[in-house]
Order: sequence, then C-alpha cells, then structure tokens
Amino acid sequence: MNYDQIFDQAIDRLHSEGRYRVFIDILRNKGAYPNARCFHGHNGPKPITVWCSNDYLAMGQHPKVIGAMEEALHDVGAGSGGTRNIGGNTHYHVELERELAELHGKETALLFTSGYVSNDATLSTMAKLLPGCVIFSDELNHASMIAGIRNSGCPKRVFRHNDLAHLEELLAAEDPDAPKLIAFESVYSMDGDVAPIHAICDLAEQYNALTYIDEVHAVGMYGEHGGGISERDEAADRIDIIEGTLGKAFGVMGGYIAADQKIVDCIRSYAPGFIFTTSLSPALVAGVLAAVKHLKNSSEERDAQQRNAALLKGKFSDAGLPVMLSETHIVPLMVGDPVRAKKISDILLAEYGAYVQPINFPTVPRGTERLRFTPGPAHTEEMMDELTNALVEIWDRLELELRKAA
Amino acid sequence: MNYDQIFDQAIDRLHSEGRYRVFIDILRNKGAYPNARCFHGHNGPKPITVWCSNDYLAMGQHPKVIGAMEEALHDVGAGSGGTRNIGGNTHYHVELERELAELHGKETALLFTSGYVSNDATLSTMAKLLPGCVIFSDELNHASMIAGIRNSGCPKRVFRHNDLAHLEELLAAEDPDAPKLIAFESVYSMDGDVAPIHAICDLAEQYNALTYIDEVHAVGMYGEHGGGISERDEAADRIDIIEGTLGKAFGVMGGYIAADQKIVDCIRSYAPGFIFTTSLSPALVAGVLAAVKHLKNSSEERDAQQRNAALLKGKFSDAGLPVMLSETHIVPLMVGDPVRAKKISDILLAEYGAYVQPINFPTVPRGTERLRFTPGPAHTEEMMDELTNALVEIWDRLELELRKAA
Ligand SMILES: Cc1ncc(COP(=O)(O)O)c(C=O)c1O
Ligand SMILES: Cc1ncc(COP(=O)(O)O)c(C=O)c1O
Repeated sequence: MNYDQIFDQAIDRLHSEGRYRVFIDILRNKGAYPNARCFHGHNGPKPITVWCSNDYLAMGQHPKVIGAMEEALHDVGAGSGGTRNIGGNTHYHVELERELAELHGKETALLFTSGYVSNDATLSTMAKLLPGCVIFSDELNHASMIAGIRNSGCPKRVFRHNDLAHLEELLAAEDPDAPKLIAFESVYSMDGDVAPIHAICDLAEQYNALTYIDEVHAVGMYGEHGGGISERDEAADRIDIIEGTLGKAFGVMGGYIAADQKIVDCIRSYAPGFIFTTSLSPALVAGVLAAVKHLKNSSEERDAQQRNAALLKGKFSDAGLPVMLSETHIVPLMVGDPVRAKKISDILLAEYGAYVQPINFPTVPRGTERLRFTPGPAHTEEMMDELTNALVEIWDRLELELRKAA
Repeated sequence: MNYDQIFDQAIDRLHSEGRYRVFIDILRNKGAYPNARCFHGHNGPKPITVWCSNDYLAMGQHPKVIGAMEEALHDVGAGSGGTRNIGGNTHYHVELERELAELHGKETALLFTSGYVSNDATLSTMAKLLPGCVIFSDELNHASMIAGIRNSGCPKRVFRHNDLAHLEELLAAEDPDAPKLIAFESVYSMDGDVAPIHAICDLAEQYNALTYIDEVHAVGMYGEHGGGISERDEAADRIDIIEGTLGKAFGVMGGYIAADQKIVDCIRSYAPGFIFTTSLSPALVAGVLAAVKHLKNSSEERDAQQRNAALLKGKFSDAGLPVMLSETHIVPLMVGDPVRAKKISDILLAEYGAYVQPINFPTVPRGTERLRFTPGPAHTEEMMDELTNALVEIWDRLELELRKAA
C-alpha cells in the first residue's frame, strides 16, 4: 500500500485530461467593481476586469452592506462563538430568518453556513424524516443537491432536464403511497435556462409529492422583491421548501431554506449539518440583512443586470461568437474542450486583463466546457466592446470558427 | 401519505424526551465579553454573563481581529463572489493557507467554509481516492467526522474511546494490504480529555495506516504557537492530516486541513464540499489571519484560560458539585438527565443572568446530559464565585445531591 503513489496518480489524471485547476489569486477593489487586482503571474498585482463573479448585483460592495457589517463588528465582534444551540444564536440570525421568510411568503426560514450546506443538510435529513422517500432529481441539479440526495440514502430517480413527461413517467411508476420529493433548480446557472415551476407543481399535486427548489441563482434577482423565479411566476406558495444562498446576489456568504414552521423545525432539530457547526458570523448576517432589505425595495440593480446581460448576448451574437441560448442573466459561450477553454481564458487574462474562469468537468458535462460571463449592473458598454473584440481576436488566433454574423 | 402528520410526530418525539431545543437569542457586547445582552423572555434585552462560548480566548473581540476585518471590508468588500476556482480565490485565502501550514509544520493547507465541512468533505473524499479504505474511528468522534465517514461509504471500525488495545485489535484484523485511515480528535470537547497521539501514531506506523486528527478544540490553545495538542506533544510531523476550525479559539468562522502538498491537492481537486461552494468571505479570512498571527506570538490568552479553567474546576469541586475529570480548559458538570439539565440552565439564565446551555442527546450520549462551562481569559474570580454559589443554591432547590466537600 503506497499512499503517495495513489495520490500522485489522482493528480496526474487531472493533468492528463487538461482539467487540473489553478486558482487565480485576486483582490477586488471595493467601490470600483468589476475592477480588481490580480496577483497571478510575475509582474506584481495588475488591474483586471472581473467577468465571472457571482456577486451578481455588486451588493458585496454596497455601502449599506459594508456599513451594516462594520456596525455589527463593533457591536458584537467577529464570530458567533458557538453553534446555534450553544451560544451562537444572535439577534441578527433571528431577524434575518424572519426577513427571508417574509421574502418568500413562508412561515419561517433557517440559516446555514452556505448554500451547499443548506442543500446537503436539508435533503439528506428530509429522507431521515420520511422513511422510504423517493427523490426525483433533475439531471442538471447542482453538486450540493446531488450530495444531499446521495447522503440521504433514499432511492433516487433522475429525470431529464426540465422534461415534464419524463418526470411524470417516473412519478407514475412509484407506489402511490410512498413519500416523494421533487428536487430542482429555478435558474440553472451553467446554461441560464429556467424550470417550468407551475407545471412541476401540478405534477407534485397530482402525485402527492413534496417540492424542493434551489433558487440560488435567482434570489435577489427575480421577482418584484427579489424573491426569485418563484416570486416572479407567483408560484412560491406552491413549493414546500425554497432554498437560497446569501453569497451570490446578496453579496455575502451563507445559505437558507424557507418553508412551513413544522418542516423547518424538523430540519433545525434533526440535521447534523445544521446542528453541529459554528453559526454564521453575526457580521455576515448583518450584511445580508441590509442586502435583502435593500433589494426588496429597489429594482434598479436587477433592471441594470438584465439590460447588460441582454446587451452582451447581443454583442457576442452579432460577432458570431457561440453564445448559448439563455433566458437569464447568465451569458455562456460554448467551447466544448477543456484545454481550449483554459487557453482562451489564459490569453484573456494575460493579454487583455479580462478575467473569466473556464468551466470544465465536473461542473459541466465533458465536451460542454465553456466560458461563463456574468455581466452586472456596473459593467459598461465599453468594457463589453473590448471583451467582444478580444474574443474575436482570440477565436481567430486559435483558428476557431465564428458563426455567420446575425 | 400525510406529510404534516409525520413532521408533527418528529417534533413530538423531541418534546416527549425533553430535548426540544429552544435557541437563546443573545448579542455579545464587544469589548466587554463575557458580558452580553439576552433577548429571551419578556423584559427586553437584559445583561447576562456567557459561560458556554467557544470563542475560547475572546479573539472574536480582539482589536487586531476587528481591525483586520474592517480593513478587508473596505479594501475588497463583503463576500468573495465565487467558489475558490471561479473568482473567489483572494490573496487573503492564499496567505492564510500559508500561515496555517506553517503553524502546523505542514507543506500546505486548505480552507473550507467551516470545521464541519472540512471534516465531512475531506473524510468522504479520502475514501474516494483510496478505494477499499477501512476507516478506524474513535467512538466519541464529532458528528462532522461521523458524517464524512458515513458519506465516504467506506467500511468503518469504531474503537472504544482512546482505547489503544481495541484499536490495535481492529487494525490487526484487517487485510495488511488494504488502505487504512485512523480518525480521532485531540481534545474531546464534551469531556475535556485528550487522545494519546504518539501511541496512536505508533500503531498507524506499525499497520501502515494514515492518520487524521481533529484539533478543533485545541488549535490556538495548546502548543507554544497555538498549533494544538500535536504541537504541544511534538507529534505534528507524525500525523498525515491535521484539521482545525477558525470559529473557536481563532474567534471567527471557517475550517481547514493542513497536510502534504499532494494530499491537499487531491482534496482540493476532488472534494465536492470544497469545490462547489462560495469561498469564505475575505473579511473573515483577514480576521483569522490576524488571530493566528497574534496567538503564534502571544501565550498570555492561553495561560489565562488554563488558569481560569483550573480555578473554576477547583471551586466547583470544593462546593461538592459533580464536576467531571477534565485535563483541559473544558469544565463539564454532570447532570445525567435532559429535563433537569434544562431546568438548571433555565434558572441560571432567568434568575442569575448566567448563560450556560444544557448539552443533551445527540451531542452527548443519553443519560450523560450535562452543563458545559468554558471559562476564558476574561472571566473574573468574582464571576466564578457568583456562579458557584448560584449552582449550589439550585442544586439545593432541586434536591440534587452534592458530593462531600473535598
Ligand atoms: C445551484 C447551486 N446551488 C447551491 C450552490 C451552493 O451555494 P453556496 O455557494 O452558498 O454554497 C451553488 C453554487 O455555489 C449553486 O450553483
Ligand atoms: C470536534 C469538532 N469538530 C468539528 C466541529 C465543527 O467545527 P465548525 O464549528 O467550525 O463547523 C466541532 C464543533 O463545532 C467540533 O466540536
């Protein structure tokens, strides 16, 4: 048994597939986002433009958010000092849970240390509460949902992406008396498409299944108050559990679920991933509270984001770049090969100061490697033109084909 | 299938066992810790003394930590805006990993969003890297290690707490060529006892097993530089993976492992719980960096904590209270019944303004419910006397027996 050799082989596999990941070391410039400093390479920090942040609305830079965090830091200190049950339940946590419940029109909400943990902990515990539960999972569900379902030990049925007929077929095949849960996302973040929420809820009602939606890439960004696609489509009351993150449009860090009192009480009481961990730092919670409240009453950021996403898609498309169809704020450019995707990204960063991370397996299926752009309210049209020109130049240099201009 | 009824039953079970948890809503007073405000009950916020925080050294209140967080907030903003691979790798993360590696004398380190996630993600992935790996786990290991081992799907052998003979028996029973991992803690936080690290490493060498130690309740607090029990006992170089938290003695939030480059590279590349989640907020990382650096060079906080823990144990013991044997900074008082433990805690909070959470199942085995005190550098002897007198009065009121005074 030679452990070193095994670890070496695991790393070699990544290199040989061209998907060994190198983390780009950056610092954003508060107040000047999407500008940042990059510590990559050898010439000291150099200025870059960030095109792949999930701080979608730049709320992580918002004066209200920074101010609230600073205030909390000075009022109560850095960490919470305990689990929610043992000394780590602050007044901020209680208030934010109330605010998030209201945002989604639910009785209550529950905070987790991340969106990943909220999915993993909730899904794996639902199953413990509902013995024999069959979980129906969209094939493109996020790794954290897959982990939760796997860790639940429940039988799992994977339905083809957004395919209602396939979902119905799978539902109909199960014992009508078995507990069932349908788990899906609202905005799929690598393609930018959206789930047919009402139609899925229709099936859930017909087959007496619970529904679980991941709105990680939608909360803050859709709906009149930022309640996500379920708010926009007026479907929130039809969904049993709504899950979201505090680390993307809300600009900070953490995750949550919103649901009926009794469901939340069960998760709160039975999920190890919720119980046995230091609670979110109060300063983070205070920052999120400010972000959620702001986005409840302001649509300016949402509107600007949508406008800029449409603009960038248009520019890519006009230039003949392989932009993927996307109904949302996400602008993916298909490359289809991990080595080439990394190469384009490397050139963009080194020569054009534009930072967009290549997306490869296991984040997306092999053969669909891509670049994923997330223009926000602060990206200017000039930045978009520069980016588009750079991409066209690189496409040309690498002898990639451009589509006929539209 | 009536879902509501099932959820109701799950909650009823907790009530009937007397272990339904009510979170006490508090805010600590920065600069005046262990004083805090309690929002529980009906008379508005009232002042309390916190006796159960895991901000063991009050670093969460330290001016250097608060200052560093504030500076980071103003430099780069609130959240990181992405996973470590996609835009969320800041210079702070890189620096803290370097600092933690140095603290433990390892080649490198890797940050996670919490100590829970570091255990879960690392242990469940180790197994994926080492097919057929048998994991040997101390019976008192923390829920997060249990989750990681369970989620790994590996065969698991549980050895009796700190029982070397039993561990050896289990090791000897396995195929000598099978990969093996021994997972244990240094300080067990509910009893306050310590693992025999060298003896466990001897067995690991003899049977060619990897070693994994959870130093969550020791980092910052033991060893000349706060490297934990493995530093104090000069055993760090014999352990393959050292895991710790940033949310207890370091006062903020987050978790990490420190190990050889190739092990860390494997976890970094293969663990979904590391890959698919927004990275720690840079402000948190900056705060931890200040805390780790401070505690590397200052033993003042460690010494004061040890002094105060010994003092409180002495006072409890002199008063005949059932203080458990503990070799560390943790001061547990055995009650042995969940309802009574909660009652004592309730009276302490309501009548004496002393906050200590009752510890019940599943955190400790049934029948060993207890109160767990964590005196820190800032608890005064006067506070200890008040607490001891209050406990004696309550013991008397509830007709519990006191041991003969020593
Ligand atoms: C769909 C989806 N769900 C959950 C998560 C995890 O959320 P968090 O980053 O808060 O852990 C992510 C990405 O990070 C995601 O894309
Ligand atoms: C032994 C042990 N390991 C790990 C953890 C989890 O660490 P964190 O609070 O950083 O998630 C805890 C407690 O919270 C613990 O007691």
